[in-house]
Amino acid sequence: MSVHAKKYDRRNLKWNGWGWNDATYDLKGHDDELFRVLSETTGATELPATPSVDWEAIPLKPSRIAKRTQATFAASLSAEAVVAVDAYERIFHSMGRSYYDLLRLRAGQLSEVFDLVVYPACVEDVQAVVRACVKNGWALVPFGGGSSVVGGVEAEKGEDHKAIVCLDMTRMGRVLEVDRYSLVARVEAGCYGPVLEETLQRQGLTLGHYPQSFEFSTIGGWIAARSSGQQSNRYGTAAAFLVSARMVMPSGELRTLDVPKTAAGPSLLQVIAGSEGMLGVIVDVTVRLHAVPTFRDYRGVLFPSFGAGAEAIRRIVQAGIPAAMLRLSDEDETHFLTMVSTMSPRKKLRQKLLDRVLQLRGMGTRPCILLLGVEEDDAAWGAAARDRALSIARECGGFHVGAAPGTSWYAGRFNMPYLRDIIMDRALGVDTLETSALWDNLDATYQAVRGALLRELNGRGAVMTHISHSYSAGSSLYFTFFFARDLDDEVGQWERLKRAASDAIAQTGATISHHHGVGRDHAPWMAAEVGESGLELLRGLKHVADPTGILNPGKLLPPR
Amino acid sequence: MSVHAKKYDRRNLKWNGWGWNDATYDLKGHDDELFRVLSETTGATELPATPSVDWEAIPLKPSRIAKRTQATFAASLSAEAVVAVDAYERIFHSMGRSYYDLLRLRAGQLSEVFDLVVYPACVEDVQAVVRACVKNGWALVPFGGGSSVVGGVEAEKGEDHKAIVCLDMTRMGRVLEVDRYSLVARVEAGCYGPVLEETLQRQGLTLGHYPQSFEFSTIGGWIAARSSGQQSNRYGTAAAFLVSARMVMPSGELRTLDVPKTAAGPSLLQVIAGSEGMLGVIVDVTVRLHAVPTFRDYRGVLFPSFGAGAEAIRRIVQAGIPAAMLRLSDEDETHFLTMVSTMSPRKKLRQKLLDRVLQLRGMGTRPCILLLGVEEDDAAWGAAARDRALSIARECGGFHVGAAPGTSWYAGRFNMPYLRDIIMDRALGVDTLETSALWDNLDATYQAVRGALLRELNGRGAVMTHISHSYSAGSSLYFTFFFARDLDDEVGQWERLKRAASDAIAQTGATISHHHGVGRDHAPWMAAEVGESGLELLRGLKHVADPTGILNPGKLLPPR
Repeated sequence: MSVHAKKYDRRNLKWNGWGWNDATYDLKGHDDELFRVLSETTGATELPATPSVDWEAIPLKPSRIAKRTQATFAASLSAEAVVAVDAYERIFHSMGRSYYDLLRLRAGQLSEVFDLVVYPACVEDVQAVVRACVKNGWALVPFGGGSSVVGGVEAEKGEDHKAIVCLDMTRMGRVLEVDRYSLVARVEAGCYGPVLEETLQRQGLTLGHYPQSFEFSTIGGWIAARSSGQQSNRYGTAAAFLVSARMVMPSGELRTLDVPKTAAGPSLLQVIAGSEGMLGVIVDVTVRLHAVPTFRDYRGVLFPSFGAGAEAIRRIVQAGIPAAMLRLSDEDETHFLTMVSTMSPRKKLRQKLLDRVLQLRGMGTRPCILLLGVEEDDAAWGAAARDRALSIARECGGFHVGAAPGTSWYAGRFNMPYLRDIIMDRALGVDTLETSALWDNLDATYQAVRGALLRELNGRGAVMTHISHSYSAGSSLYFTFFFARDLDDEVGQWERLKRAASDAIAQTGATISHHHGVGRDHAPWMAAEVGESGLELLRGLKHVADPTGILNPGKLLPPR
Repeated sequence: MSVHAKKYDRRNLKWNGWGWNDATYDLKGHDDELFRVLSETTGATELPATPSVDWEAIPLKPSRIAKRTQATFAASLSAEAVVAVDAYERIFHSMGRSYYDLLRLRAGQLSEVFDLVVYPACVEDVQAVVRACVKNGWALVPFGGGSSVVGGVEAEKGEDHKAIVCLDMTRMGRVLEVDRYSLVARVEAGCYGPVLEETLQRQGLTLGHYPQSFEFSTIGGWIAARSSGQQSNRYGTAAAFLVSARMVMPSGELRTLDVPKTAAGPSLLQVIAGSEGMLGVIVDVTVRLHAVPTFRDYRGVLFPSFGAGAEAIRRIVQAGIPAAMLRLSDEDETHFLTMVSTMSPRKKLRQKLLDRVLQLRGMGTRPCILLLGVEEDDAAWGAAARDRALSIARECGGFHVGAAPGTSWYAGRFNMPYLRDIIMDRALGVDTLETSALWDNLDATYQAVRGALLRELNGRGAVMTHISHSYSAGSSLYFTFFFARDLDDEVGQWERLKRAASDAIAQTGATISHHHGVGRDHAPWMAAEVGESGLELLRGLKHVADPTGILNPGKLLPPR
């Protein structure tokens, strides 16, 4: 077993929460203050303990795959492949890590678990697994880091399937080849973010892809769900940095050419990207690299309103200024982040003084913070880009508050999901969803989605929003909502919130997902996204790639 | 009829050559000198006149669509739609404008012509035409500017089709909407390049897409064939500047959302791009715009070898320097372009002096010219980008020769295709083809394709090559070959050249097309491009979109 496989052994990871078993969000002793803030935010007067069940206590039906069949199956694979049927593995893999998933995991309410988990070690293993599933009528769910927040890897089967198999790709996690001249690398699909970046950065190279899930997601998952990273403005989203891919389908293998651009027909590469395990199993990908930037500069700029900050982003991006990150929090998110980051009395005092200064500067009492990041090879070029961006920000009413907010954000940029586990222990809930819209449609989308969530929360929660990714034509919108859980109807409460927000997105003509993907949760809105004709084309692809329909049932495509 | 429709009336355009009837390549009286150069280049000792037939002399079978059916068909369309069955329209549309097409047109050898040409005026007309073709079993070929050089719009039918209809989209040529805030425009598919740019530039905006065919191609064609423009390094290729599209298919209408980025499944937008009229008729598209750049700077840099110049391009692009154009000609192309641009005795003398200077500079007798173009909004930024690029060019052995070559190229950048007509009048031929490859594979591809063409030409022609588009991971290669026509077997000669080059491309793992598309000519190499599994997926899409198979038969997909 490789060092990486050992590190990412599922026993080292939470089965019912985020990340490492031994890691948590560091509240630095300010637990009470956090819950005071959250009570204030959600209007929750009581915060009873709502602990998770133990996984050992969850009753599981035995695997629907007989021991003997398991043995035959295992014998068809390479010696390095691993087949697991123990309860921990079956439960760990049974779903992703969305709020809805954690609700059910913590309650031990699993409608399905996998009958078998297999870790292939090579492409031939993947082919053998696919063949076995087709032959035996088993549903097959490709699984990377399992960090999906849209139900993309959930154990689910069609009526006719006799069992469900999880294909955990993380033993296929090697960087196969680095071409320093073409600045590309070929990487096995199951390679985790940190493993990839450590390997590349030892050679002075980087992919530069840092989604919030970076530590616990794989490159295959990034491609399959069209991921975006925190600095995708510079390094490109997953669909954009993808040069070529290799996918094992029940109908055969699809391999696109290693070329920088082609005009040879509709892009099958961009069909693989976003296919979410529905068409095949991505086994390796070739991706575009960069030199590790020597210039890295993150700043905070305050704006009197979300609109003023968005206008600054629009103008910076449309001017072609190469910012690596432009992350703007709205009034409520800025306020919340300030409260969370100033929980000590000393910090509170400092914040009070800053607030006074800001008011004198005409910033009002509820400013919005923009984090501006620039990453470049050439320091003078990087500084010039930063200064051009700051100059536009000032023209739009921005007030530059220096590097501290940027540095602080950068240090904690992967930690937020750990906070969710702490919150869920105390009868509170938090979920996120996201979209993108044209600039012209951005405010309408913001108002509609925020309004829909607030109406549904009905005073028992708060909505915070930020722009994390921007383009010449528009930007993303990322919504985080905290709320007091309705302990009598937790799932119903979540479903109503999700439906209200998703309907609002569809009504404004925005997309159901900018970077989380579709999975099971967004499938009902795919008709609004691509129309009935679009669904038929996707079903046509599915029918050719996976004629017996074993792959990832219930995801991406709505039922007919 | 609109001013534009009048201007682009097919009677104003050559039916058997390039562009306007009354336009030609201006040889400034140096005709003899040109043919001397071409004789030297191709080894042709005689250059007999080989004029085209007159179109009136081409015998046509009557339309297979009866007069009465024509009338019923016309009556189903809007009053502004036009139906044409006269000989000129049928011949004009019968094929694209490749060398192979001109060979056959000039000889009057048309195996098929359209039975009817229809110019729809609105989406409802397109829908009615598609319905009529499905109902009557007529093949339907969507047609934009008709400038395809890969047989993409040729009149061709399947065995069962009772007739062939040409859907000329150029009466649907309006700019429907310009959103200055989101910097996007919605444009009807049949809009010609100059009409689009005139409309946009009146508002200070530009798409910035200038393929060599710019004056005679449409935005629908650019998307359908995944076009690249001369400055696509800055403005993006057609597939990249496409925000959304609307396509009428026999199975229904596909319309993608107007959003800057989505993660909602495989990209149907990138299936529409490159679909070459095989899946549906693109009726309108939304595309990303830019402000018209205030800084525009084109320079020439000479390199001692093609490899040294390619290395400079690679380093400039990988450093992220925003060059709008990096166009590098190899030794033979640079030599030829120099001969053609110095046909007067005065210019010859000046060139001799320059050659002497270059030799003293260690440039050898066969330098390669790089044209470096920078287009930016901010003049200081643009100048800094240019200087960074020039500095890398110098590090790679480049010698900056100032703005003159850039200015001269810019002025004549759309004229080259007119030269082909002059050449074809004198028993000579010229064709072009192109590919792209990773940097690591570029020299191998260059040598293989050039070698294959030279072997096939066997001393009776010359091959010139340039890089016109570059990416972090690799670049395009564009081959132009001049040759003495084998007047006894013109088509066979062309087929052998095409096959030799295409096989070489496939063998090196490069793409069969960087920006010309597939059409009929490249279809036999699609299996090498996407594999049998890829072909099956494309056929699956075709089957859903166009179940009776009326759309553009014989293009893109090889016969089974």
